[in-house]
Order: sequence, then C-alpha cells, then structure tokens
Amino acid sequence: MPPDEEMKIQVFVTPSISSAEEIRNSTVVVIDTLRATSTIVAALNAGAREVVPAGSTEQAVRLVARFGAHRALLCGERRGVRIEGFDLGNSPLEFTTNVVSGKSLVMTTTNGTAAFHHSRHAESVLCGALLNAGAVAGRLLDTSPDSVILLCAGTYGRLSLEDLLAAGAILHELGNAGLSFQLTDGATTALLCFRYFMKDIPGALRSFEHGRTLAGLGFDDDIVFCGGLNTFRIVPMMIGSTIRLA
Amino acid sequence: MPPDEEMKIQVFVTPSISSAEEIRNSTVVVIDTLRATSTIVAALNAGAREVVPAGSTEQAVRLVARFGAHRALLCGERRGVRIEGFDLGNSPLEFTTNVVSGKSLVMTTTNGTAAFHHSRHAESVLCGALLNAGAVAGRLLDTSPDSVILLCAGTYGRLSLEDLLAAGAILHELGNAGLSFQLTDGATTALLCFRYFMKDIPGALRSFEHGRTLAGLGFDDDIVFCGGLNTFRIVPMMIGSTIRLA
Repeated sequence: MPPDEEMKIQVFVTPSISSAEEIRNSTVVVIDTLRATSTIVAALNAGAREVVPAGSTEQAVRLVARFGAHRALLCGERRGVRIEGFDLGNSPLEFTTNVVSGKSLVMTTTNGTAAFHHSRHAESVLCGALLNAGAVAGRLLDTSPDSVILLCAGTYGRLSLEDLLAAGAILHELGNAGLSFQLTDGATTALLCFRYFMKDIPGALRSFEHGRTLAGLGFDDDIVFCGGLNTFRIVPMMIGSTIRLA
Repeated sequence: MPPDEEMKIQVFVTPSISSAEEIRNSTVVVIDTLRATSTIVAALNAGAREVVPAGSTEQAVRLVARFGAHRALLCGERRGVRIEGFDLGNSPLEFTTNVVSGKSLVMTTTNGTAAFHHSRHAESVLCGALLNAGAVAGRLLDTSPDSVILLCAGTYGRLSLEDLLAAGAILHELGNAGLSFQLTDGATTALLCFRYFMKDIPGALRSFEHGRTLAGLGFDDDIVFCGGLNTFRIVPMMIGSTIRLA
C-alpha cells in the first residue's frame, strides 16, 4: 500500500453481503468468535498440525479417511453439540496438546466453515477471534494490504454481536498501533460495540443470543475462554484448503 | 400478542438477510433514514395524498402516466441526485405543502424502494425514520404484533449506520414506554448505536459514509432535517403498492 493512503477496512456482519470481487481483492479475516475461529486458534496453539474445514459431516468423514489411521481427528458440531461419532466437538477446551499435538483436524461447524468457504478466493485469509485480535492486527500492520475485510461468520446469515465485537477488537488494536484507516459504517459499529463491552467481555458474550444458547447447553467455560482478549499471539492462515500458523 | 409474552423485535442491517417467511409473519418497519423514508414522512406530513414506490425510472414514468395530468409527480434519485426530467429528487426539503399537497407521488430511490418491495408480503408495512421514531413506537405499542422486523434499507446491500440509528431510536422509544422485548443481537447493536450518537444526531449522520457523500453533494440541510428526532407524529403505512398515512 502506498504510505500516504489509508487502509480500507470493511466489516461485514455476515458473509453473504460481500461480493466475490471484493473478496478476491482483499485480505479477509474470518471471525467466528463462538466458537469456530477461537477453537482453531486454540487447536493450533496446542500443537495441531493443521485444520481442514469441511462443508458437511459427509465431507468431513471423506476427508479424514484420506489421512492415515490416528493422524487426523474428526471434529465439529451441529446446533452447538458434538456430531455423533466424531472425535471432538467445537469446544476449544477439548483441543489440548495431549489430544491434538501433531494431528490434522478435519472440522465442520455451522457458520465458521461457510465463512471460510466464502473467502477461499481472497488474496489472503486469516483466522481471527478475540483470543488473537492483537496478533491479527499486528499481521495486518506488517503486511499492509490495500483492502481488508473483517468477515463475521454470523449465525445462520444474521449478525452475531460476538463476531462484531472481535472485529471491533482488531480495529481497536489497529487504532492503538497508530494506524489510520477509513471508517466505514461497519467498522464504526464494530469499534463502538467493542469499546462498549470491553470491560467485561465474558459477561457481554453471555448476554448475546448465541452466548445465551451456549450457556444453556452447559458451555459457560467456553464463553469465558473465547472472551479472553489477546490470550494468544498466533495468526492462523488458510492456504488452499488448509489452515496453519502463518 | 398474549400479554405475558415479549415482543420479538429483529433488526436487519440490509433486506437480503431476512427470509420471505419471516417477513410474511411480521410487522415490518422499513427504514431508509437518508433519505427515502424521511422524505416520505415529510411529503405525507406536507399533505401529499400518497407515495407509490417504483422499482426503476421506467416503471416510475409508466406509473405516473396512469394518473391524470398535474395529479401526480415523478420523484427520485440515482446516486443522490434528482433523475433527469423528474419533478422532484429525494430531498425532503423539496416536498413542501405548496408543491405536494393533494398530489400522488411516484418515487424511485436506490435502496428505499428495494426495501419496500422486499417487504410487500408482510402482515403490515410501516415507514420509519428518525423523524417519526416515537410515532412508529407508539403504533407498535398500540397494535402489539408478535413479531416486528426493523428493516434497514442499507446502502447497496450494506449496513448503513443512519438506518441502524433510526432502528435504535424506535427501540429506545419502546423501552421508554416500558415495553420489554427480546434483545436480539441486531436490536442490542441498534440501541447501542442510538444511545451513543443521540446527543448530536446531525453530527453523527454527517460522519457516516452516506452522510459524507450527501454532504459532498451539497445536501447538508437534508442531513440536519433527517436528523430531527421525533419532528413528526405520523406513521406512513404501505397498503398494496401505496404508502399513505395510517
């Protein structure tokens, strides 16, 4: 990017409202705070080799079969709960070093997987969450793309506040680092939400629609974990069909 | 609505993310703050007989021909500017009693018209803006529908903060009136935006993307006018293909 130009950062509350052309010309940060991208960050931090998103249960089973026995784990949820017969669900707390170190993970989730699929032709695809907001911001500062899309996975095509919050956290970190960027309306909204809720992020997540659902399913520890701002300094990146550490 | 149940209020940042089924079962408030719904409120307040939204310039010309000479006016904009050969553009300040009293207005605008078209099969369709937020809230309290959709027109399929702000204003008025409603994530976001910006609404509108464009086109007076919270106590309603006072 020329040094005198501002980075353009758009925030989309759900993948469908971004066009294929915009995606192609942008660095896209996929955000699914509760819980897919948080889980991917946790898994790679715990030593998993890679995460391969799959669009369906059937595709996940087919993909895992391509790896040798014991080398890949089948992971994913439907309606928040581990898919029957799968090794792991979508709770980041399951993805410990013991369990995932050195393994490939084939993962299918309701909204996160679709967001990665939507982004597959982007210039570059990063994986963002509250857990690694500062690291994602650092990576954007280092690589300085002309156009950035913070792509909220949302929930069934709708705005999810926890994703807007993580987008706001990344923008807040960029602002703290002195970056000036064009304030699109989506970016203004995300920043406002983050700054409003930043003092008690787990409390905020618990009050949002999807957080209420997860708490009802007994996943309160996940909410606390996923609300841990900047717990990790890593940036997962999707290259081809595989997510690995950048 | 049964008295012990909470009204469900969803806020959609752009029409495309609402499903046909949800629309069919809801009272929909179409919001295009800058400027279509503000202009409709101003026009009906100034004595216009009705507003007929048209999907295209050609359709508007065809529709106006069905009215006798001098009985209908051709109104609309493209990229913020009056369409060539049209009687009026989309500036609410043009729609004075002198000009519009007793007339039918055929109107085509970029985002507002599409939002009305998207809502046409709803149980009921109201026209909302900052100008009449309190009146819309009053109408919702009186009619007490089970399901309400505050449908932001957005800008070319994207979130427009001025629409989210007006949605938040309606929710704020409902809250002030003591209504308890389910806080969907969209509603929480809209309320947050409204409460953050409410102290200087014209200043806020001017800082948003579309406000900056309009200010650049010389429409600053429109921004001040459209930012006038609760200037009018009227609620335009679409029945069939025509918007009139409820």
